[in-house]
Amino acid sequence: MPTPRPVVSRHHPFLKEFRAAFRTPPEESGKLAIEGPRLLGEALRSGWKIEKVLFSETGHAQHGPKLLTQFSKHVAVAVVEDDLFRACAEVEQPQGVAALLALQVPDLQEICTAQRADGAPPLLVVAAGLQDPGNMGTLLRSADAFGATAFIALAGTVSPWNAKAVRASAGSGFHLPVLSRLAVADFLAACRVHGVAILSSAARAKLELDAVDFRRPLCLVLGQEASGVPREILRASEATVAIPMQREVESLNAGVAGAILLYEAARQRARNDV
Amino acid sequence: MPTPRPVVSRHHPFLKEFRAAFRTPPEESGKLAIEGPRLLGEALRSGWKIEKVLFSETGHAQHGPKLLTQFSKHVAVAVVEDDLFRACAEVEQPQGVAALLALQVPDLQEICTAQRADGAPPLLVVAAGLQDPGNMGTLLRSADAFGATAFIALAGTVSPWNAKAVRASAGSGFHLPVLSRLAVADFLAACRVHGVAILSSAARAKLELDAVDFRRPLCLVLGQEASGVPREILRASEATVAIPMQREVESLNAGVAGAILLYEAARQRARNDV
Repeated sequence: MPTPRPVVSRHHPFLKEFRAAFRTPPEESGKLAIEGPRLLGEALRSGWKIEKVLFSETGHAQHGPKLLTQFSKHVAVAVVEDDLFRACAEVEQPQGVAALLALQVPDLQEICTAQRADGAPPLLVVAAGLQDPGNMGTLLRSADAFGATAFIALAGTVSPWNAKAVRASAGSGFHLPVLSRLAVADFLAACRVHGVAILSSAARAKLELDAVDFRRPLCLVLGQEASGVPREILRASEATVAIPMQREVESLNAGVAGAILLYEAARQRARNDV
Repeated sequence: MPTPRPVVSRHHPFLKEFRAAFRTPPEESGKLAIEGPRLLGEALRSGWKIEKVLFSETGHAQHGPKLLTQFSKHVAVAVVEDDLFRACAEVEQPQGVAALLALQVPDLQEICTAQRADGAPPLLVVAAGLQDPGNMGTLLRSADAFGATAFIALAGTVSPWNAKAVRASAGSGFHLPVLSRLAVADFLAACRVHGVAILSSAARAKLELDAVDFRRPLCLVLGQEASGVPREILRASEATVAIPMQREVESLNAGVAGAILLYEAARQRARNDV
């Protein structure tokens, strides 16, 4: 168990590092900064490598005893005054503990082929153009809950590592491979090479949800809130899928639509004992 | 088509009335204030009674020509300067048209017995303790999309007529009967009297979703984000229902959980030709 460093001045090198990490897209820095004991716990349990931990004084008193025993001896820890911590983390209601992680970037070829532990074929969830971090977090959480094998956010989509998205996902991004900023052309090429069929969600579609066979390598594409799935991806899709509705509402929340697609996929896969 | 009144001073009586309506819970005033041409259009199409309409100058130029032809001659219309409108509506990005509606309060006995147009038995969605207006709006939108016959928000739950909830629901509250601030005891009594079975959503539950028979008078209860469905309602429930998940996530977003319950209900009801 590392000995926490004492409370330090505004010039502690950690402060600058964390401040930068909270303000730089993780895809650019390779570092992911998270805040709060719950997210930190999720990262730890999921085997993510924690490099540095920053406590506020209050946070250290509150969460230190429980958390410190869980870190490896390679984790560097610092404790700073509460107001320094708050200014650094830039979270609305900081909980007094932040961590710096090395962002895990999965291999595209691998996620197109990796089966689930239960032998089920790959089931990828792909966000194509989603802009709202809350929706992104909800979609990622659903992907996690319903057993997607990987999650992809295409270029031009809000990052699943955006701080708000991470909070909305409650740390689901630590549970499955998450690839962001993937170029559409690379995504389409990988699906072609590895025989992963693309199904795109659309309000008006050729196929109703229960006519889809989910028991094969698949990727489910959810589009932008207003404009839907980009044309380029629609053209490469095996089919567009609609969620059967009783009353026509303008469009379901993307997180909700994704959850229902995944629920139906999980239902079919369970029933047929794949 | 009523002739819009000219631009007026800060003392136009409409301003005070709208300002009050935007700041008072509709359940108390009996008046619902909404902002934006889309919500106004939903209210009009759904046959809600519009009493007064307030335009900003810009909003009047932009939306007046299309909207004014749709109002009955009993609708009073005023146009005010943009900054007066903005201060009155207190919306982040006002679109320049607001309306005052008489809040429709459905009868509890009626919504416990009213069948759907297609003859399907009552399917009520009940929010018990939900606190986030965004989740409330999403849940209401799903209830609308998947053919719920009515929506109930129990006492102690965020109001479905909360401005943020109305926006998140995209006006779904105009499409089906919505009853809010209902006392738990009255709700339970009505279900008992009318033979409506109560199913409560829970993370760990006795029944898996596909073991539920949705083809009878039912109400689906969604609980508070963290603490779930209140014990009093659990005790009166026929069963608690869990959504089958592959990986255990802390809990699904309430809007998502509700949507999946409703999707499954709609799927069963469609398949069995009720």
